[in-house]
Amino acid sequence: MRTELQARLADIPLIDHHVHGPLRDRVSRTEFESLITESDRPVPSWMTQFDSQIGFAIRRHCAPLLGLPERASAEDYWAARSELDPDELTRRLLSASGTRHWLIETGYRGEQILSPDELGQLVDEQVDEVVRLESVLESVAPGCTAEGLVAAFRDELARRARSAVGLKSIVAYRYGFDFDPEPPTDADVLRAAGEWLRSIDSGAPPRVDDVVLLRMLLREGVATGLPLQLHAGYGDPDVELHRCDPLLLTRWLKAIEGSGSDVLLLHCYPFHRNAGYLAQVFPHVYFDVGLGINYTGARSATVVAESLELAPFAKILYSSDAWGPPELHHLGAVLWRRGMELAMRPWVEEGEWSLEDALRVATLIGRGNAARVYGLSDD
Amino acid sequence: MRTELQARLADIPLIDHHVHGPLRDRVSRTEFESLITESDRPVPSWMTQFDSQIGFAIRRHCAPLLGLPERASAEDYWAARSELDPDELTRRLLSASGTRHWLIETGYRGEQILSPDELGQLVDEQVDEVVRLESVLESVAPGCTAEGLVAAFRDELARRARSAVGLKSIVAYRYGFDFDPEPPTDADVLRAAGEWLRSIDSGAPPRVDDVVLLRMLLREGVATGLPLQLHAGYGDPDVELHRCDPLLLTRWLKAIEGSGSDVLLLHCYPFHRNAGYLAQVFPHVYFDVGLGINYTGARSATVVAESLELAPFAKILYSSDAWGPPELHHLGAVLWRRGMELAMRPWVEEGEWSLEDALRVATLIGRGNAARVYGLSDD
Amino acid sequence: MRTELQARLADIPLIDHHVHGPLRDRVSRTEFESLITESDRPVPSWMTQFDSQIGFAIRRHCAPLLGLPERASAEDYWAARSELDPDELTRRLLSASGTRHWLIETGYRGEQILSPDELGQLVDEQVDEVVRLESVLESVAPGCTAEGLVAAFRDELARRARSAVGLKSIVAYRYGFDFDPEPPTDADVLRAAGEWLRSIDSGAPPRVDDVVLLRMLLREGVATGLPLQLHAGYGDPDVELHRCDPLLLTRWLKAIEGSGSDVLLLHCYPFHRNAGYLAQVFPHVYFDVGLGINYTGARSATVVAESLELAPFAKILYSSDAWGPPELHHLGAVLWRRGMELAMRPWVEEGEWSLEDALRVATLIGRGNAARVYGLSDD
Repeated sequence: MRTELQARLADIPLIDHHVHGPLRDRVSRTEFESLITESDRPVPSWMTQFDSQIGFAIRRHCAPLLGLPERASAEDYWAARSELDPDELTRRLLSASGTRHWLIETGYRGEQILSPDELGQLVDEQVDEVVRLESVLESVAPGCTAEGLVAAFRDELARRARSAVGLKSIVAYRYGFDFDPEPPTDADVLRAAGEWLRSIDSGAPPRVDDVVLLRMLLREGVATGLPLQLHAGYGDPDVELHRCDPLLLTRWLKAIEGSGSDVLLLHCYPFHRNAGYLAQVFPHVYFDVGLGINYTGARSATVVAESLELAPFAKILYSSDAWGPPELHHLGAVLWRRGMELAMRPWVEEGEWSLEDALRVATLIGRGNAARVYGLSDD
Repeated sequence: MRTELQARLADIPLIDHHVHGPLRDRVSRTEFESLITESDRPVPSWMTQFDSQIGFAIRRHCAPLLGLPERASAEDYWAARSELDPDELTRRLLSASGTRHWLIETGYRGEQILSPDELGQLVDEQVDEVVRLESVLESVAPGCTAEGLVAAFRDELARRARSAVGLKSIVAYRYGFDFDPEPPTDADVLRAAGEWLRSIDSGAPPRVDDVVLLRMLLREGVATGLPLQLHAGYGDPDVELHRCDPLLLTRWLKAIEGSGSDVLLLHCYPFHRNAGYLAQVFPHVYFDVGLGINYTGARSATVVAESLELAPFAKILYSSDAWGPPELHHLGAVLWRRGMELAMRPWVEEGEWSLEDALRVATLIGRGNAARVYGLSDD
Repeated sequence: MRTELQARLADIPLIDHHVHGPLRDRVSRTEFESLITESDRPVPSWMTQFDSQIGFAIRRHCAPLLGLPERASAEDYWAARSELDPDELTRRLLSASGTRHWLIETGYRGEQILSPDELGQLVDEQVDEVVRLESVLESVAPGCTAEGLVAAFRDELARRARSAVGLKSIVAYRYGFDFDPEPPTDADVLRAAGEWLRSIDSGAPPRVDDVVLLRMLLREGVATGLPLQLHAGYGDPDVELHRCDPLLLTRWLKAIEGSGSDVLLLHCYPFHRNAGYLAQVFPHVYFDVGLGINYTGARSATVVAESLELAPFAKILYSSDAWGPPELHHLGAVLWRRGMELAMRPWVEEGEWSLEDALRVATLIGRGNAARVYGLSDD
């Protein structure tokens, strides 16, 4: 029996404040399975990635949109999915998510996924862009001199930022959060730039993982005044997870507190309680449990509930962090609504919260806070 | 429908083993909002601190004591509260908490809050004092010589300890738990004292944050044999939270194990499971989830439940850590009783625990353990 | 009312993939209480270890097997237990656990507990051995030269491994996980061996805690290709718990990834979510919440549920980590079944999972994964 809370949660038009494009083309089942895990290793022969929380959630929540019964088998799911045109699949799954505004981060393997414009046309919904700092630097590096690198980066960032609503840093992946919180000096940057550019000249791919350059990106990003998203916590094995606890950012957060930039900590699992602490004590800090929702499936209700502890309700956001399979864009929204319902229903039944309290909080998290932070017109 | 468990939990006369005085005077709404968060930054204009777990809990549990319906709006709550005399407000909220003995820590902004004696007279209940080591040192420092500092501190501590039931250290705030576990040498203390006193002579406020002096305070505190409270985990932004994980105390806890002093880890959120481990393996270690209860509101039931894992039931205590608004003194007790009920009710219903087991455990945590550790006569 | 899920979970013939022998002889109540805690300190006079989650679980789940009512008092339990022959007690408790295959780790205080063979005869079930690397080294050290130590260790390990299904390392207890992830050089090992052997010659007990030697053991263990169990997280006070977070193994796990050896992280509490992350991203990493189940009693359902997040279901195992009192062998299984039921029942009722999904996952965790990893014939 659907509760009123559930029904009204389903009607909140979500803003997904951190997401990537859905896949452009068909993928094989092997490719698909490798896209529903954060592992970048081949799925071992003795298992299927469908046997996981996210796999079960796909069978439960996506199967009906393909004309299958709930909890269809992985084999039936794959067969039905294979018959659909990728664009049609994307349209169905994204529309059914009830997400009405997508803030697309474009910095990762962009050639395999739809661009923001393409996505906007396909689903006829609002789309905005979030620019990844590392990708901008990597795009301007080839051919640059060490002396010219920062200026070239600034120019390109300014150009890209003109149509963007926010920035993103993946310093968590490339180094960790245990970096020197002070901005690097120009001399340090010059030296690091020289070394990096020489390695590119010698044929290395332009992948920035020098911590001085990463700190320069943060410095420049903060200087724009745009909201700055930071991957935090759980991610692929590039991450050394214990070095991505957002608490390690404490001194850096204090150092940039006067800048006017807001910081949005993404995912944070399993450190989301730590992120909630930072969001309570620092006015410029926000967080979500993005990626941690999809990958914990039926258990994500607990993760969502744990995000509703220390942080004021004006400091929590919703994101799916989907990349690739449109199942992820769909599930993020479905599981977030489910999680909010399971967290708040007992409070409403017990009388701790009113129904209107619950809906107001869900609307703040699901769209209102994102609209305010990013200055979106839809609020 | 009230369960028998709930009714009998409501009757436990609590000992709040770590709390501060309620506000002496009226405060503005702005001041009030800044007192129901651990942030020391101004509440941003685009939010109200009432939109948080603690704010919702105030509307739910304190409003009825002001003659309002449960879940009254923040505006109605503020209006009703403003009409009440501060003493009358305090009396109502504290009496309704069912707390019958308050162990008041007096070291923080004492001029704004009622003293233990004043509180005892106002609510006509038992009151005892816990003395903050850092405050004692700071009170004797001005005018001291480096050679005389430790002796002056010892004298003053002995004087203050005569009427105290315990001591408190805030080394977590002033430094962190990653300090050298061995006591400092006299030579080290002398040098640190000289430096600190010179800074005071030069006009710096007498705020001790030198780690050698902080370790000297721990050494001296342990030497008294009094129970020693340590702030751990979550607190205001002075804290670097990852450096306040009580596990970082492991070597120090071993070093002082033979001293006869008990150590009480306060709050511990989000490291309360770690504290539970320490309380299981070390006979002299206790813990509570104090501050973590009020600030997680409806979610505090989970925090309370998580405190009921590794630690033997003789090693867990109750505290509110309230400071200032008497709402906090009230809520701590209300939410702790609710948390215990929600944690234990399923176990009783399922047959894992008997009802008498549950009540016995709650009575140990709510008063018995504190009475034993502090040697209070009310047990 | 027993659910179908509950009934069918009760029928899964478990493989306990990490356990020790039950006690050989009678123990006093004092000894017994010291065996149902990870503390190695005497139980203080003002408490009984029965007043803990594990104590309550014994009264609830073991009392009926001794002819007592559920939740019998500690005194009645002790009286009834004292009348039983140790072998009879063991037979009853182990048989009722529904465990059908025990992988016994033999490296700890072997003289006080039944050997694998003795246990197999007593309970008439399958038994296999897991060999502790540190014990093997310590057994060959007396009389060895530094030059001959590694060869002697290899010979003995090869001999012991012939009849073993896996290896175990307690580097967590002896050092922590913050070790150099690269294998040590032969020169380093020679130097460390010399120093250690000299200390033994001088009368020190042969207890290996030199980190170079511990890393040598890991290197040699991995070279065998056998599954390698690592104690992780919660344990007795030898552990510095924050240094036993399995995330600290990240670089070592990457370093040995090509070796073909599987790594099984044991217990992991309170870092089991971190272990789930490692098990998702690294194909050779598995985990359980072993010891964390028994010691959290009624709360273990939450710990079990938290283990069902990131890891694919093919990467999670069951163990009791029981040592000594056969109550622990029994409770591990009972509480794991209860935990799985409480975690999955709402998902089945809500329609997130099918009943068959739930049973398939439980069978993987309860026996299938262990059978595959250890190459046991019973799958």
